[in-house]
Amino acid sequence: MSLSSLEELIRILSKLPGLGPRSARRAVLYLLKDKHRNFFPLLENLNQVASTIKTCGICGNIDITDPCNICSSTSRDNTILCVVEDVADLWALERSGSYRGLYHVLGGTLSALDARGPEEIRLPYLLDRCQKANPPLDEIILALNATVDGQTTAHYIASSLQKREIDIKISRPSIGLPLGGEYDYMDDGTIMSAFQARQKFNA
Amino acid sequence: MSLSSLEELIRILSKLPGLGPRSARRAVLYLLKDKHRNFFPLLENLNQVASTIKTCGICGNIDITDPCNICSSTSRDNTILCVVEDVADLWALERSGSYRGLYHVLGGTLSALDARGPEEIRLPYLLDRCQKANPPLDEIILALNATVDGQTTAHYIASSLQKREIDIKISRPSIGLPLGGEYDYMDDGTIMSAFQARQKFNA
Repeated sequence: MSLSSLEELIRILSKLPGLGPRSARRAVLYLLKDKHRNFFPLLENLNQVASTIKTCGICGNIDITDPCNICSSTSRDNTILCVVEDVADLWALERSGSYRGLYHVLGGTLSALDARGPEEIRLPYLLDRCQKANPPLDEIILALNATVDGQTTAHYIASSLQKREIDIKISRPSIGLPLGGEYDYMDDGTIMSAFQARQKFNA
Repeated sequence: MSLSSLEELIRILSKLPGLGPRSARRAVLYLLKDKHRNFFPLLENLNQVASTIKTCGICGNIDITDPCNICSSTSRDNTILCVVEDVADLWALERSGSYRGLYHVLGGTLSALDARGPEEIRLPYLLDRCQKANPPLDEIILALNATVDGQTTAHYIASSLQKREIDIKISRPSIGLPLGGEYDYMDDGTIMSAFQARQKFNA
């Protein structure tokens, strides 16, 4: 078939996380089966996103304004800063409603394998931000993923803050059994962390 | 978050076959993480598809020309017509390289549950096409999916052709064990069909 643009569309869609060549083909056919209900709304929406969505210059979040509505909000606690790897993590925390402070999106972790150093994930900027914050920060929460790279990055950030003698409380969310989790299915590291971080049980 | 256009984009993507709300969110973040490598190529390509892709007025295939390149090809056998449910099925047959005749895409099957009758799947048009074909058709292959609706539709088409006294060979691809399949995992209906359609084995 001489459908180069269709084939290209399938190729692009097949690179999306969660899709492969077969599901991309199904997706394209779904879009084209009813163009007016499926294809054009998607196209219009992508156009709208392209023209409206910006990356926040302060925290790295994605929003329609720069600074984003979290950074410019007056109702959030601007003495706490939560460091996350990705915008996806920020969204997850926002959905959970468990945090009302400010964010800092690194856009990745330190990684020896992928040759990502402190400059690549804007770590110097984070340290500056902690130092110059007005009002000064009380606490920084290192909500990095519980992966090797995530925890390495958390340790690096903590030691960099201490090296710069930035006096600030550093914390991280606890590692432990997820809700609904069973010890039988959990890895040793998680169980060990959960036991080490055990808390008083109030009956 | 006040990201209505982003949320709308996630909603639209989550309706694609194979995607749900969570994977749609991941897909959107993937697209926005590197706009120039991921987002804009997709947008550009969708624009191109929107302006170039047409539905063939003869067979119902999707192509950049109308009639499509299969209908207008001179190298294909125009005395055989293969009836398929969907463009996806047409593509699958083309990929297999097992067929060099013309196609007819119904765009669905007869379905009592979904209230789709002969008019909805352009059956009268198929019968006209069979009757008026020039050169006349030798054979019509009913390559409808081996589902209840698919086989019902195949039977309906066959009886309609006979009712109109259109003298044409009607066939269907055989039902049987797929390559790599094992009897142990196969349903009774498939095994029965495979045995009924058994063929001489040439050692």
